[in-house]
Amino acid sequence: MDKELSSIHYDQYLQLQKILKAQHLRSEEFKKPAHDEMLFIIVHQVYELWFKEILHDLNSVMDLFSEGTVEEAQIGVAISRLDRIVKIQKILVDQIDIIETMTPLDFLDFRNYLLPASGFQSFQFRQLEVSLGLKRESRVSYTQCAYSGVFSDEEQEILNKLEAEDSMLQLVEKWLERTPFLQFERFDFLQEYQNSVMKMLKREEEAIKNADYISEHEKNLRIRMLGETNTYFSSIFNKDKHEEKLKEGRLKLSYRATISALLINLYRDEPLLRQPFMFLQKLIDMDELLTTWRNRHAQMVLRTLGQKIGTGGSSGYDYLKTTADRHRIFYDLHNVSTLLIPRSFLPELPEELKRKLDFNFSKQSNK
Amino acid sequence: MDKELSSIHYDQYLQLQKILKAQHLRSEEFKKPAHDEMLFIIVHQVYELWFKEILHDLNSVMDLFSEGTVEEAQIGVAISRLDRIVKIQKILVDQIDIIETMTPLDFLDFRNYLLPASGFQSFQFRQLEVSLGLKRESRVSYTQCAYSGVFSDEEQEILNKLEAEDSMLQLVEKWLERTPFLQFERFDFLQEYQNSVMKMLKREEEAIKNADYISEHEKNLRIRMLGETNTYFSSIFNKDKHEEKLKEGRLKLSYRATISALLINLYRDEPLLRQPFMFLQKLIDMDELLTTWRNRHAQMVLRTLGQKIGTGGSSGYDYLKTTADRHRIFYDLHNVSTLLIPRSFLPELPEELKRKLDFNFSKQSNK
Amino acid sequence: MDKELSSIHYDQYLQLQKILKAQHLRSEEFKKPAHDEMLFIIVHQVYELWFKEILHDLNSVMDLFSEGTVEEAQIGVAISRLDRIVKIQKILVDQIDIIETMTPLDFLDFRNYLLPASGFQSFQFRQLEVSLGLKRESRVSYTQCAYSGVFSDEEQEILNKLEAEDSMLQLVEKWLERTPFLQFERFDFLQEYQNSVMKMLKREEEAIKNADYISEHEKNLRIRMLGETNTYFSSIFNKDKHEEKLKEGRLKLSYRATISALLINLYRDEPLLRQPFMFLQKLIDMDELLTTWRNRHAQMVLRTLGQKIGTGGSSGYDYLKTTADRHRIFYDLHNVSTLLIPRSFLPELPEELKRKLDFNFSKQSNK
Amino acid sequence: MDKELSSIHYDQYLQLQKILKAQHLRSEEFKKPAHDEMLFIIVHQVYELWFKEILHDLNSVMDLFSEGTVEEAQIGVAISRLDRIVKIQKILVDQIDIIETMTPLDFLDFRNYLLPASGFQSFQFRQLEVSLGLKRESRVSYTQCAYSGVFSDEEQEILNKLEAEDSMLQLVEKWLERTPFLQFERFDFLQEYQNSVMKMLKREEEAIKNADYISEHEKNLRIRMLGETNTYFSSIFNKDKHEEKLKEGRLKLSYRATISALLINLYRDEPLLRQPFMFLQKLIDMDELLTTWRNRHAQMVLRTLGQKIGTGGSSGYDYLKTTADRHRIFYDLHNVSTLLIPRSFLPELPEELKRKLDFNFSKQSNK
Repeated sequence: MDKELSSIHYDQYLQLQKILKAQHLRSEEFKKPAHDEMLFIIVHQVYELWFKEILHDLNSVMDLFSEGTVEEAQIGVAISRLDRIVKIQKILVDQIDIIETMTPLDFLDFRNYLLPASGFQSFQFRQLEVSLGLKRESRVSYTQCAYSGVFSDEEQEILNKLEAEDSMLQLVEKWLERTPFLQFERFDFLQEYQNSVMKMLKREEEAIKNADYISEHEKNLRIRMLGETNTYFSSIFNKDKHEEKLKEGRLKLSYRATISALLINLYRDEPLLRQPFMFLQKLIDMDELLTTWRNRHAQMVLRTLGQKIGTGGSSGYDYLKTTADRHRIFYDLHNVSTLLIPRSFLPELPEELKRKLDFNFSKQSNK
Repeated sequence: MDKELSSIHYDQYLQLQKILKAQHLRSEEFKKPAHDEMLFIIVHQVYELWFKEILHDLNSVMDLFSEGTVEEAQIGVAISRLDRIVKIQKILVDQIDIIETMTPLDFLDFRNYLLPASGFQSFQFRQLEVSLGLKRESRVSYTQCAYSGVFSDEEQEILNKLEAEDSMLQLVEKWLERTPFLQFERFDFLQEYQNSVMKMLKREEEAIKNADYISEHEKNLRIRMLGETNTYFSSIFNKDKHEEKLKEGRLKLSYRATISALLINLYRDEPLLRQPFMFLQKLIDMDELLTTWRNRHAQMVLRTLGQKIGTGGSSGYDYLKTTADRHRIFYDLHNVSTLLIPRSFLPELPEELKRKLDFNFSKQSNK
Repeated sequence: MDKELSSIHYDQYLQLQKILKAQHLRSEEFKKPAHDEMLFIIVHQVYELWFKEILHDLNSVMDLFSEGTVEEAQIGVAISRLDRIVKIQKILVDQIDIIETMTPLDFLDFRNYLLPASGFQSFQFRQLEVSLGLKRESRVSYTQCAYSGVFSDEEQEILNKLEAEDSMLQLVEKWLERTPFLQFERFDFLQEYQNSVMKMLKREEEAIKNADYISEHEKNLRIRMLGETNTYFSSIFNKDKHEEKLKEGRLKLSYRATISALLINLYRDEPLLRQPFMFLQKLIDMDELLTTWRNRHAQMVLRTLGQKIGTGGSSGYDYLKTTADRHRIFYDLHNVSTLLIPRSFLPELPEELKRKLDFNFSKQSNK
Repeated sequence: MDKELSSIHYDQYLQLQKILKAQHLRSEEFKKPAHDEMLFIIVHQVYELWFKEILHDLNSVMDLFSEGTVEEAQIGVAISRLDRIVKIQKILVDQIDIIETMTPLDFLDFRNYLLPASGFQSFQFRQLEVSLGLKRESRVSYTQCAYSGVFSDEEQEILNKLEAEDSMLQLVEKWLERTPFLQFERFDFLQEYQNSVMKMLKREEEAIKNADYISEHEKNLRIRMLGETNTYFSSIFNKDKHEEKLKEGRLKLSYRATISALLINLYRDEPLLRQPFMFLQKLIDMDELLTTWRNRHAQMVLRTLGQKIGTGGSSGYDYLKTTADRHRIFYDLHNVSTLLIPRSFLPELPEELKRKLDFNFSKQSNK
């Protein structure tokens, strides 16, 4: 107990002696001091500090989900940790405005001293991608050199180990697969949902046919939309098709996990599903912000370097832009939107299931 | 059903004929066209549109809370509506950057044509303040003229009616007062909490006394902090003191409501309290952003007008700055932080109560 | 003079009767009121109001540049107007956060009532694109229907007229082409620049050859980079190549305009070139933010609709994403970065030219 | 030359071994690991890194201004450096959102281990305040302890030296005082300006008197406004009054410097004054953002600690809030807005002076 009271000073606590002495300007070393190199170093150090925090939060969430069971209270914790990551990501995007105060000409003053250092060598960012679920084989190949040339043996080992373990994507998949509500006594969610979809499509078709007063053009549009809608749904009703797409790499979440995600989205207003729904939303937020960051990063590089090759030898802009789309992790969750149906067509849950999804605390009390 | 299919065009749906034809430049009317007056008009129209949306969301939440009972599912809805308000408020703050592109000199080109129009005349903003819970008697008095000179009879009537009804603050207070968990069988929350606080304070005092190795200065600091901490707590343990402060206008929430808010904050990890906790957080976010907006608004006015008197005759900057602090609504919720104690001192809830605060869905299942 | 003093009230000045009465919910009309439709309408109206302001500012800048000569003072005005546009664009991007509070399920509650309205029908946004310089033939073709089906005859005529006139891109091109400093007495900018580039490339090549201590891998990287650098420069030294690329649509600015932009970037520290440099920067900012907006918009659509077809019949996400890259206007200005060389290699300007680029006010005075 | 080609790796360049190993959690040391302490450390380290960059940029601007003469080109550099500071400040404000993801209860888990560390001990932030021009005697006194108890002897010496030297405020004052345009041949700016003000006031008074159709209330308002306007102006026409206010600490800039700032604001469209005007704007931006940061910081503390005393012994919220207003540096520049008059009343500059304020490059050329 006593020990808790030992004193500490701000500088010492934050180890500012290390932090504020870790800016060594290469341009000064080479006797051609460039004012903006300080910014260049500091902005990257700030990024790395935030990456450390993101990994700290992400790992803690992965720990929660790597147990066989996830307690409800823990989903609350997971949401608040992901929310923190999302808020950090927003700053990561916004602070690109700071880097862009460095004009291309100012960068040229010291760029030559940096070779072959490159953001591609950020170990923490790679850790983050792998932890989220980016597979080596899905990576946009990086022109310069083999993966092995970039990281130390020790680092490579860590990455290999990470790839072998469950990623966030896989942990979420397993958690979704465990959802017990897909089949509840006589209530078969998928069957009920399919019935509703069919009813909805049929009603829409009839409505279009009978609507004499809308233009032919619009009628065709509506029929075409209906056709495409049909296509999307047919895939979720057919496990084989789904697994085919998994093999082709066009989907990432198992059939069962996808259906659970759909259920959570459709019945998110039930108390027990509220938190799981918010959790899925946060994953989508995170994914979206990662994409936004990649897009903005690519643009910033275009602006600073034009078509010049990056210091690490990458093709710069083109490489970065391609990753924005291709390195998306939770694409399947975005895609669940395709399968949603209006609330008015939603199959009603049996009373007993609704009760299970509610709190023990009696409804009669006035809260 | 058929009717649902009637067609609509973008322009028509958004009534752009009205929206985009509602910018009439006074400077043009007076034959001295000032380029920036367009911005001035549009930025205010955008503010009013957002105010309308905020009121739409706030009113819907107030409706949910004006029933005797608030369903759990409805708290989820309330949270998402308040979250939307918060996101709008962020934009309201950020878009001050746009107004500030209008320099003071540019404003002078048309300012004289605007008298005596003033932001103080925004009926929707007044509605918002009153709906949240700002009382006429707590308002910073506005130098220019009586309340009655500003709004039409009809508008005044609406405001009077609003003031007579329950505000958001009062609805939240009533909802908090209904919390049934303050007393649960033999578990008396306030008593248990008080015991914990006492134990905590005693241990801290002893630790300080025994810590020979910390400086005298720091020892004094810690003892002083302990003393002040003591003071805060003594107020929550004494209903009379609390009610005295209510009378003096230094507090706004009733004794019982305050204790409920404290309980929700301390046991927010229990599933049933998770959503109520998030709801209280959103109220604080909203309050904080309103204060931020007032501060930024005041600064923007200082920058554009200096010490000049406002077009409505207000003292401009000084008036606005004072409201930032004095027009805060949910100050008591901010203040609950003063009463929190570390988790390690938290009284443990009885098993039966924990069960009540959890879901019906059996824990044995693997979710 | 008297007339200037006529009074006006806030509501009347902002025409709030029109603005705040222009939200007609289709879902209410069809007796299935959906709370979130209000947000959907308001957010689009806000976008349209900002578009009006952007057009107001952009047109005023285009007017300044459509004269044969642009006064220096006017460049200052142009910069501040573009800066305003940029600040508005930031808000346009940021407020996507507000739209995303509307979940896909909430959108489905009223989506069906909106057909076939679509953001593609925004006349102002089309005006903006055409005014900036997006040509009909460069547009990503929109699957649904011909251009003519979207706008009224009158609107089409306006767009046709706009396309026939000089766009912002063309006005900037003409202004750049008029720069008189490319050839100043015996100083031939392009020749001097070419000499410097050659000298720089040669020195780099030698340095690489002689650097025994760097790895073979890095040596190759550096040589490869040098080669590519060579390629970029060769294009700017060869007018024919440049014009070939213009024909292929891979470049948009004329040879002479490109060289002027290069000169302004390289000698931006000379007083007379400072403002032109800032002006070019603002154009790049604007272009970059338009791209960011398109990217974020595409993601928001993916999130809300998944792969569903848009209400206007577009392929939604894919269409929007493609425009982000393909509808860029000032790509050539971004690309000037490729041609920059470090200040240490910059050809020195003749004294007389430096004097011309400075102020009349005598240097001896102490300012 | 060769040496420039020595290789460097990303980790090594950014000294990530230092940066990423500088997070030592006190809560872990005391065997009660608190997840959120990592965030607490990292967010403060990020702030300190940004403070270092701000000081780097600010010092470079102060160096430019500490010469007897400031070259025009250097004002351009100063603007871009201040612009960078402003962009960093925006992030400093925005990232408070990240800190606020740490709830009060989470903070209590490790708060006790931090005593008596306090943000008040940030040496860099103190350096920044002193460099800008905050005087010891103007500081809001900090309850805890003497200035000397906070910093080491060495640090105190640096601060003393900084206080003895010219601050940014003083450098700006001297630079303004050197403006040679206040008196140009027969053109006496102050006299001409005074004439215009008088003419303007007289015309306004007459207009009010003659306007029978506006309400008595409004008439009184306009007359009162006129009266106050009169008061502001009378102070600028009376050097003695100005110096009295300086002595009382109500103003900070000398009489001559204030008049120069006014001239620059009024004639900012003249090419030579464009950059000085933008420079003054950036100072105001910087000041405003510092105030915004202080306000947000105060609110964040209120939210996390309530009325609890800070770890350093400060009164937390109240102290911080007071500094927001009282530690403003460039208040006089904000205040120049009070003295502006509409362009239509602006005294015209003599042709010869206009020529001096323009570029050497002949107007006949088509640029």
